[in-house]
Amino acid sequence: MDSFDTIAAIATANGIGSISIIRLSGKDALPLALTLSKRTNLNPRLATLSSIYNSDNEIIDEALLIYFKNPNSFTGEDIVEFQCHGGIAISNIILNELIKLGARLANPGEFSKRAFLNNKIDLSKAEAIAKLIEARSEDAVKLLARQLKGELTNFVNDIREDLLFMLAYTEVSIDYAEDDLPSDIFEQIEKKIEKIVVKLSETLESSKRREGLIEGFKVAIIGKPNVGKSSLLNKLLNFDRAIISDIAGTTRDTIEESVKIGTHIIKIVDTAGIREASDTIERIGIEKSLSAVNEADIIISLFDNSKVCDDEDKKILNILDEIENKEKIIVLNKIDLESKFDKTQLKDEYIELSTKNSISTLVKKIETILDNNSHDDDMTLISKRQVEAVEQTLYHVQEAKTPLMTGELEFFAHNIHEAIENISLITRPYENDQMLDVMFGAFCLGK
Amino acid sequence: MDSFDTIAAIATANGIGSISIIRLSGKDALPLALTLSKRTNLNPRLATLSSIYNSDNEIIDEALLIYFKNPNSFTGEDIVEFQCHGGIAISNIILNELIKLGARLANPGEFSKRAFLNNKIDLSKAEAIAKLIEARSEDAVKLLARQLKGELTNFVNDIREDLLFMLAYTEVSIDYAEDDLPSDIFEQIEKKIEKIVVKLSETLESSKRREGLIEGFKVAIIGKPNVGKSSLLNKLLNFDRAIISDIAGTTRDTIEESVKIGTHIIKIVDTAGIREASDTIERIGIEKSLSAVNEADIIISLFDNSKVCDDEDKKILNILDEIENKEKIIVLNKIDLESKFDKTQLKDEYIELSTKNSISTLVKKIETILDNNSHDDDMTLISKRQVEAVEQTLYHVQEAKTPLMTGELEFFAHNIHEAIENISLITRPYENDQMLDVMFGAFCLGK
Repeated sequence: MDSFDTIAAIATANGIGSISIIRLSGKDALPLALTLSKRTNLNPRLATLSSIYNSDNEIIDEALLIYFKNPNSFTGEDIVEFQCHGGIAISNIILNELIKLGARLANPGEFSKRAFLNNKIDLSKAEAIAKLIEARSEDAVKLLARQLKGELTNFVNDIREDLLFMLAYTEVSIDYAEDDLPSDIFEQIEKKIEKIVVKLSETLESSKRREGLIEGFKVAIIGKPNVGKSSLLNKLLNFDRAIISDIAGTTRDTIEESVKIGTHIIKIVDTAGIREASDTIERIGIEKSLSAVNEADIIISLFDNSKVCDDEDKKILNILDEIENKEKIIVLNKIDLESKFDKTQLKDEYIELSTKNSISTLVKKIETILDNNSHDDDMTLISKRQVEAVEQTLYHVQEAKTPLMTGELEFFAHNIHEAIENISLITRPYENDQMLDVMFGAFCLGK
Repeated sequence: MDSFDTIAAIATANGIGSISIIRLSGKDALPLALTLSKRTNLNPRLATLSSIYNSDNEIIDEALLIYFKNPNSFTGEDIVEFQCHGGIAISNIILNELIKLGARLANPGEFSKRAFLNNKIDLSKAEAIAKLIEARSEDAVKLLARQLKGELTNFVNDIREDLLFMLAYTEVSIDYAEDDLPSDIFEQIEKKIEKIVVKLSETLESSKRREGLIEGFKVAIIGKPNVGKSSLLNKLLNFDRAIISDIAGTTRDTIEESVKIGTHIIKIVDTAGIREASDTIERIGIEKSLSAVNEADIIISLFDNSKVCDDEDKKILNILDEIENKEKIIVLNKIDLESKFDKTQLKDEYIELSTKNSISTLVKKIETILDNNSHDDDMTLISKRQVEAVEQTLYHVQEAKTPLMTGELEFFAHNIHEAIENISLITRPYENDQMLDVMFGAFCLGK
């Protein structure tokens, strides 16, 4: 542990708040904190109010210091937290003083990476921490809290144990005569393989269904021009504006609009920049609709009750027919006008409304879908990385079946070994610096 | 202290960060924290890692809890801090759970108000805390840290002590024969009055000079149309863009642009919305310039080297002449073009440049002015409230002079009494609920 230098970062969000935290981790964390506070000691974990001095010996703040002595800290190293007054200036000044004293500005995710390297957390927990910060709904938080508590770690360990049992079988088969082995060992292994296949498949399926849970479910609105897409969009955006305006500022980088529906925050898939004038939105034709559909978890298709169902409408209905594994809602708009639309064309259930009046039936429908896709206790993978690891594990476990039956134990052992390596990727892979850099680099600063 | 209910608020800035803090203060702070964490006890000031449960008994996070036992806390009441994972969702979920359990969402400034009511801080310190959060420069932070340490409190106490001494004189003069009093008592009081007058006047003057220090010095650019105001503005805005882009998001409510010059963050006074097209800016004529000038600490007036000095330019020079107590910088722009401007019209020192090329001489000049107005150790008042209190104190101390000389001791005593009441307003006024509500209501949430 002594080999790491001392890193520092502001750990709270940037902006106006009453408290900011600067986090310092590494072998010099304690001496640097003592220098800045002119103290001779800090008792571990005891929140201690102290003046903070700059290098010119001037007081720059009164802060609470908390020292976490290694190995009982998040990173496993010595950590000191400075709880200083909020705002932008103070935390940056303290950070600069720490850097003057020899600390280094932490890279994104570097605290978590150290926690991983010091065996304080495995990768599944590190990912849960990173995703928790971005979580948008209570259901997402609960799922991630379970993962942080070790649910996925246990899942991986159970499967690995079963796989190691199988690998052991191939070794004893070589060393011992068949008579010395339990008579039902072959059946036992077959059963275990089947059990693992079911477990992995179910996990992949439920994870796919809940893909939008963590970062917010995505909703696309499609339909031909002038069908009322922009009106519906505006109605949805204004549905719970008060709550959202607070959150909008946090996603400055992407052009996307969020709406709160029930306990969920959904994102409206925005292919052309929602904030631009409404005619831009209306220009989203069939082609643009297709790309929006690909990104979305829920597709709302709009049809105009006051016009006849034309070729363009039929094209959209065809697109809907071809979509699998996504939730679809058909809406017949402009129900306040005289009906010319042939409703028999809408084979599935549909909602009638006028965006001029209330859209509450539609909002209720969206909420029901979101609830159904959120509330369940199935094991859920939370990253592409985890999904790929499980897919590869599943592939190799299935590949192991035939050689087991034909007695080609070497091929069997090879596949089980590959499966073990793949499932281990989720929690604690054979170390691979490059992979770790990529993974932790996606974390936010100070984490 | 038991009479207050239990209040809760998120104390860190809203947005993406790795840690958020929820603060809970009041008589039920400890029991509520124990319920949420399913713990039986928390040792005071000891950071304790614990699972946090919602009312459905589901884990929602792993958080550090810190219990501050009354009276040794910021508010003087029992406080529990929840250091949970960052982001928007978790902190709000924990806050909601606390409210379900009976806590109340704190009003802005309510924690500080309780700290004041429980005699943990006086008003001058409460104001320093509120301003620290908004501080934009290291000099501002240092000034406020001094005030937080009690510099202004001591200043007020010293003056009050002197005033109380004078008040005592009027009482002994009535009770005792003149012979029993020290022979130089009258001179002593006169000297004390003079000393206080100087002290208060100097404080008012230095406070006025440093008005922009805390919230950022304001700069106005004036000049007739097409003189290059918008070009200069853009050059200034791009001067240290990387640092500023981070900060811009924190002032969503006002249309204003910030630029970092040296260690200072200045605000460009924006009377017409800087983000609108440059022709809007050019439309700022003499009238608009005047209102910009009123708000600004530094005025940059621009003249066009390639044009003759016309009536409009002369009007601006007249405006400049009339401005007192503000820093003025005269800039002769378009120095790369053939000169037609009569430079003798510019009576004061001026800077020649072309906004097409470098503006570094101007930036250097601004920095020098900012440095001169920042680095000094004079007592500085940080709010209008404080300035008004000192002005009133000064007025009454001066009013007391004549009755002292004429021996009208009742008038003298009345004015000294008024002076004491006014200087006390800065730290600990005779309590006035309405005034406190107004003052603490301007604080940020969670403070």
